[in-house]
Amino acid sequence: MRATVFHAPGDVRVETVPDPKILAPTDAIVRVTHACICGSDLWFYRGEAKWQPGWRTGHEWMGIVEEVGAEVQTLKKGDRVIAPFSFCDGECEYCRKGVQTSCVHGGFWGGASNDGGQGEAVRSPFADATLVPLPPDVGDDAALLRSILPLTDVMGTGHHAAVAAGVGPGSTVAVMGDGAVGLCGVLAARRLGAERIIMFGRHEARVALARSFGATDIVSARDKGGIEEGRELTSGGAECVLECVGTEQSMAQAIGVARPGGAVGYVGVPYGAAAGINLGRMFSHNITLRGGVAPVRKYIPELLADVLAGKLDPGPVLDLSVDLDGVPRGYQAMDERSSTKVMVKL
Amino acid sequence: MRATVFHAPGDVRVETVPDPKILAPTDAIVRVTHACICGSDLWFYRGEAKWQPGWRTGHEWMGIVEEVGAEVQTLKKGDRVIAPFSFCDGECEYCRKGVQTSCVHGGFWGGASNDGGQGEAVRSPFADATLVPLPPDVGDDAALLRSILPLTDVMGTGHHAAVAAGVGPGSTVAVMGDGAVGLCGVLAARRLGAERIIMFGRHEARVALARSFGATDIVSARDKGGIEEGRELTSGGAECVLECVGTEQSMAQAIGVARPGGAVGYVGVPYGAAAGINLGRMFSHNITLRGGVAPVRKYIPELLADVLAGKLDPGPVLDLSVDLDGVPRGYQAMDERSSTKVMVKL
Repeated sequence: MRATVFHAPGDVRVETVPDPKILAPTDAIVRVTHACICGSDLWFYRGEAKWQPGWRTGHEWMGIVEEVGAEVQTLKKGDRVIAPFSFCDGECEYCRKGVQTSCVHGGFWGGASNDGGQGEAVRSPFADATLVPLPPDVGDDAALLRSILPLTDVMGTGHHAAVAAGVGPGSTVAVMGDGAVGLCGVLAARRLGAERIIMFGRHEARVALARSFGATDIVSARDKGGIEEGRELTSGGAECVLECVGTEQSMAQAIGVARPGGAVGYVGVPYGAAAGINLGRMFSHNITLRGGVAPVRKYIPELLADVLAGKLDPGPVLDLSVDLDGVPRGYQAMDERSSTKVMVKL
Repeated sequence: MRATVFHAPGDVRVETVPDPKILAPTDAIVRVTHACICGSDLWFYRGEAKWQPGWRTGHEWMGIVEEVGAEVQTLKKGDRVIAPFSFCDGECEYCRKGVQTSCVHGGFWGGASNDGGQGEAVRSPFADATLVPLPPDVGDDAALLRSILPLTDVMGTGHHAAVAAGVGPGSTVAVMGDGAVGLCGVLAARRLGAERIIMFGRHEARVALARSFGATDIVSARDKGGIEEGRELTSGGAECVLECVGTEQSMAQAIGVARPGGAVGYVGVPYGAAAGINLGRMFSHNITLRGGVAPVRKYIPELLADVLAGKLDPGPVLDLSVDLDGVPRGYQAMDERSSTKVMVKL
């Protein structure tokens, strides 16, 4: 089959790779119909994450089951499924507690040893526990599938940030980052009942999308200026802050605008973010830091129900569509910030 | 009156200072009967915190009301009271939310502008909101007063760590630090229903006290070795970790032994602790960092009720008693770790 392979920073290529095969009786082989490029893929694309040539890419994908192992019970050939960005056995302590990303037998798509989503097919371990079948009436509805696709990662991740920050009815929420996760954070905060949602961002089109998603205020100043503006707007800080970037600057801003007694829900993959942790402020004002890699598997059912009911639509974060051959161009577009998030339609 | 004054690292002196006077109608003047020296006092005593000569010391104290301002309603001359380590107006948003340490009109005892507890008397602002009267039948019971005294700070702080770490019935808890706060953390964890309490410490007498307080296991190894031993003992980490020191080493160990999906409740005044935050591990395993300066005022009523009922006794953390003139000797004893915590009996 053909799939995307990392060669070097700035260099990903679509190449022929071995076809996936059932290796364990709990596996399924899924033909990929949709995938995405993730903001976190830019960490290796930009050389920030130490990746090896030959590693496979893509952790956000949906598809149609081609074949199942002998022990797979809930899926059959022809089922349309959505995958969370990590696989899990569904049985260990952590899976049962809803921290599927810490599953003792789990792992992430792509990299050295697993198929990536940015390719024609994927072998999914623990298919029953990992993959969520879509109701048959979803069919081939292209618009609906586009709205479901962000549940593989960014919508669940934005939701995790909001849950970790304690967003509830009436909350005042500050969102750091106008990327796809931050935008989904806005959607999640509104869905959980936030009254006021302040987006920290500068990119015109993204800020406009944030407004359409429910952001009530925009702060475009950075660093100290951004913190001051955020605190002024909220008379002292937002009780819930969503940190959706992972850099030192973003973390510093998140903690800086948090209200005493409040919480920062952080989901940006940390590249330098530790340096932005102002522990003195956190300590003095009992500000909680909660979050991490999102257990998206836990969230798919409730978010999917809302998408199917027409109450939630993260589809607009996907502002560029490419085919498999267009994946390298998609990386480039995201790297240049000319696209917020790329859909790969196979 | 006479009170303790900071001169330089290693040099505190008991001197004559101005008598306190009622300055606002919500003030009370309290004659101090008991005070403590706090582990956090060692930060300025050792020159880690930048203190100015002339600043007054002591934030843990109890006493008898001498005089009240015209608007004080709940206290009168002769009442025996306990003070939390910070004062607060009791009315602002943060006080109402139980984060009295962030009170918009609040502050801490001692330093440049307030009386310290290590002296003969204290002017307490917002006396109604700040001071908690003891029931009259406590009387002069020396042993009972010693058991109540740690509620000014260390017992409430250990409790805050346990609450922040999410300790509940059946929890497995790891406690970093065998100082008075860590020891009170053990008591708090047991009180909240923890099943297993692992004390990380090396000091023989303190470890013995931890056992008598409810610690079920002791880890004496440090750094990587301590983390490994803690993870082994718990098959992967403790779901609740109490960080009661504030150093880089202690924070690193706390995060290192936290179980995926668990929480570190941190209350050690951070001196270098930020450098010990392994954000990568926290992110990968959804480990929460929650806590800060303890809103002890919130906790005094429930903890006091348990002390009076004979269900809680942090008194044994006070292992040396001095009079006011003995305060400099008390600092020395704590600095040398020959005393866990010093009681000052006036």
